[in-house]
Amino acid sequence: MDLDALDGIKQQIAASVQSTRTALALGRLGAFGGMTRLPPGLADPVLVLSTDGVGTKLLVALRAGRHDTVGEDLVNHCVNDILVHGARPIGFLDYIAGSHVPAATLTALVAGIARGCRAHEMTLLGGETAELPDLYQPGHYDLAGTIVGVVSEGQALHGDRVRVGDLLVGYASSGLHTNGYALVRRIVFDEQRLGLEDEVDELGGRVGDVLLAVHRSYWQAMAPVLDRLHAAAHITGGGIPGNLVRVLPAGCSAVVRRGAWTVPAVFEFLRRRGRISDQEMARVFNLGIGMIAIAPPEAVEAVQAAAGRAGVATWVIGEIQSGQGVEFA
Amino acid sequence: MDLDALDGIKQQIAASVQSTRTALALGRLGAFGGMTRLPPGLADPVLVLSTDGVGTKLLVALRAGRHDTVGEDLVNHCVNDILVHGARPIGFLDYIAGSHVPAATLTALVAGIARGCRAHEMTLLGGETAELPDLYQPGHYDLAGTIVGVVSEGQALHGDRVRVGDLLVGYASSGLHTNGYALVRRIVFDEQRLGLEDEVDELGGRVGDVLLAVHRSYWQAMAPVLDRLHAAAHITGGGIPGNLVRVLPAGCSAVVRRGAWTVPAVFEFLRRRGRISDQEMARVFNLGIGMIAIAPPEAVEAVQAAAGRAGVATWVIGEIQSGQGVEFA
Repeated sequence: MDLDALDGIKQQIAASVQSTRTALALGRLGAFGGMTRLPPGLADPVLVLSTDGVGTKLLVALRAGRHDTVGEDLVNHCVNDILVHGARPIGFLDYIAGSHVPAATLTALVAGIARGCRAHEMTLLGGETAELPDLYQPGHYDLAGTIVGVVSEGQALHGDRVRVGDLLVGYASSGLHTNGYALVRRIVFDEQRLGLEDEVDELGGRVGDVLLAVHRSYWQAMAPVLDRLHAAAHITGGGIPGNLVRVLPAGCSAVVRRGAWTVPAVFEFLRRRGRISDQEMARVFNLGIGMIAIAPPEAVEAVQAAAGRAGVATWVIGEIQSGQGVEFA
Repeated sequence: MDLDALDGIKQQIAASVQSTRTALALGRLGAFGGMTRLPPGLADPVLVLSTDGVGTKLLVALRAGRHDTVGEDLVNHCVNDILVHGARPIGFLDYIAGSHVPAATLTALVAGIARGCRAHEMTLLGGETAELPDLYQPGHYDLAGTIVGVVSEGQALHGDRVRVGDLLVGYASSGLHTNGYALVRRIVFDEQRLGLEDEVDELGGRVGDVLLAVHRSYWQAMAPVLDRLHAAAHITGGGIPGNLVRVLPAGCSAVVRRGAWTVPAVFEFLRRRGRISDQEMARVFNLGIGMIAIAPPEAVEAVQAAAGRAGVATWVIGEIQSGQGVEFA
C-alpha cells in the first residue's frame, strides 16, 4: 500500500476515535495511556470494568466481508456487563490482532467501535492493533475490548438485594447477540449449506442479516431505573440458567416461565434444523431474552415503562422463590 | 480431562486471582464486571488506561513450554504505559484466546499475571478466556491485557512540562522486553539455528533465559519521584526515537548521546549476527534503555537515587534542546 493511502486510513481512524471524546476525556491521541475524568458529583465512586471478545461471530463477519458491526457488538456486550452492576460506561479500549488486518477492515472495525462508544457517550480511550502472522490463521483476526464504568458504592448492584417475591423482567434480545456461533455456523453453513445472501422465511430475513444483527445494548432501557432494581443479569454464554444464577443470593431460586415471552424465529429454526434439545438450547442461546432485571413488584411498572420508551419489549418472565438455582416452569 | 482435574485447575486459577485482591477491591469473583474503589485522598482523580499484548514473544514461550513469565511481561508493560502519565496502577484485566488453551498453560498464564499484579498491589479485576479453534493456529494462543490506574489531575504527566535544558535519565532494561521478537526469532532460530537450551557466551547466558527475560516494571524505581518529573517515555516498539518523540512539546528536541549507557550483550549479538543497521536497531529495540524520564537538572540526583534504591541502573543519556524530533549524537 502506498503511504498516502495509509495516511488517509490513519486519518479516518483518528477521526473515528476523536469523534468519541466526551467532556470527561483528557490527554491526547497517541499518548501511552488514555485518560478520563470521572463524572462530577458521584459520591464514593466505584470503577466497574469488564473485558470481552466477540468470539466466532467474527468468522461470520469475515465470511460476509462486513466488519463495521462487530465493533458495536463488542461495545454493547461490554456495556451490558457493567450495566448489571449499575455502572455508567465512561471509556472503552479495543484489542485487534490478526495475521494481517487489511486497512479497510481496520477502518471498519474502529468505525463500529466508535459508533458503539458514541451511542453511550463514552470515550474510546485507546487500544492496540497487532499483526501476528504466526499466531493467527491467515486472513483471520480477533477482536476484544475492555470497558470502564463507574457507580456510587451505595448504588452498586451485586445481587445481595434480591429477595423472595421479586419479579424477573426479561428484555427482548435482537437475536443471537454474540453467543452460540460455533453451533450456529455448524447448523447454518455446514449442515444446511445456506449462504449469507439466502432469504429464509423461517428466519424472517436474509441469513447474513439475521446472523450479524447487532448485540443490543440495554443502557437506554435500564439507565433511568437502575436505582429501582435489586439485580440484573446479562444473558450471554450459559444462557438464562447460567447467568441468572450468578446474581442469586443464598436461599433464593429463580423460576422462569417458558412461554411468557416470544422466542424469535432464529432460535426455533436452529432447534429444529439442528435437532438441539431444549436443555442445550437454553444453555447456549439467549432464546430472545438478552437481559433480566430483578425488581420488587412495585417497581416493575416503572422498569417496563422505561424500556418501552427506549423501544425495547419486556415481559415479566418469572419470580424469585425460596430455594436455590434457576428452574424453568 | 476428568472433571475433578478441571475443578482443581479452576481452584488454582481462582486462588491466583483471589491473591491479588487489595483493600480497594469490591464485589466478588464470577461477577459480570470487576470492581474497585479509588485510593483514598486523591484530589481530582483521573483514570489512565492502556491495553497491550505480548506479541510474538508468546511464540518463544510456546517453544520453551514456559508460560508463567509472559503474564508478568504483560502486566509490567501495561504498568509502564500508565506510569509515564504519573498514574498508580490499581487494576488489571486479561484476555487469553487460542485454538485450545490447555489447562496447565492457562494456570501458568494466570499465575504470571497474578504475580505481576501482586508486585504492584493491584487487583486482577477480571478477564476473558476464549477457545476459538477456527481463528488461531493450532496450539497457539494470544494474550492481551488492560490496566487501569489513577492520578490526580494536577499531577498527570502529558509532556507539556518539558522544557529546554531538561535532562534525559535512561533506566536499564532487563533485555529485549516485549519488542522486536519477529526479528529476534528470525535471527536466533532461523538464521543462527540456535536452540533455547544453547549456552551462548556472546549472549551472556542460555538462549531461552535471555529471550524470555521478564519485561521490567519501573514502578518501584519511579513512583517516589513522579512529582519531580516533567515527562516519561516507555521505550517499546519504535525504540528510543519512536517513543521519546511522543512526549516532546513543540519547539523541543531530544538529543540522545550514544555511548552514555551500557548496551546489553543481546543487542550487540543481534546487530552483528543479523547484520542489522544501527538505524534499524534503534527503531526496533530498546538497546538497553527501557524507560526515559525527562527531569529538570536539579531533580536528576533524586530521580537516580530512587532508581538505585529499587535496584535499577540509570544514566543521564541526553538532554532537551530547542528544535524538534529526536536525534542521536
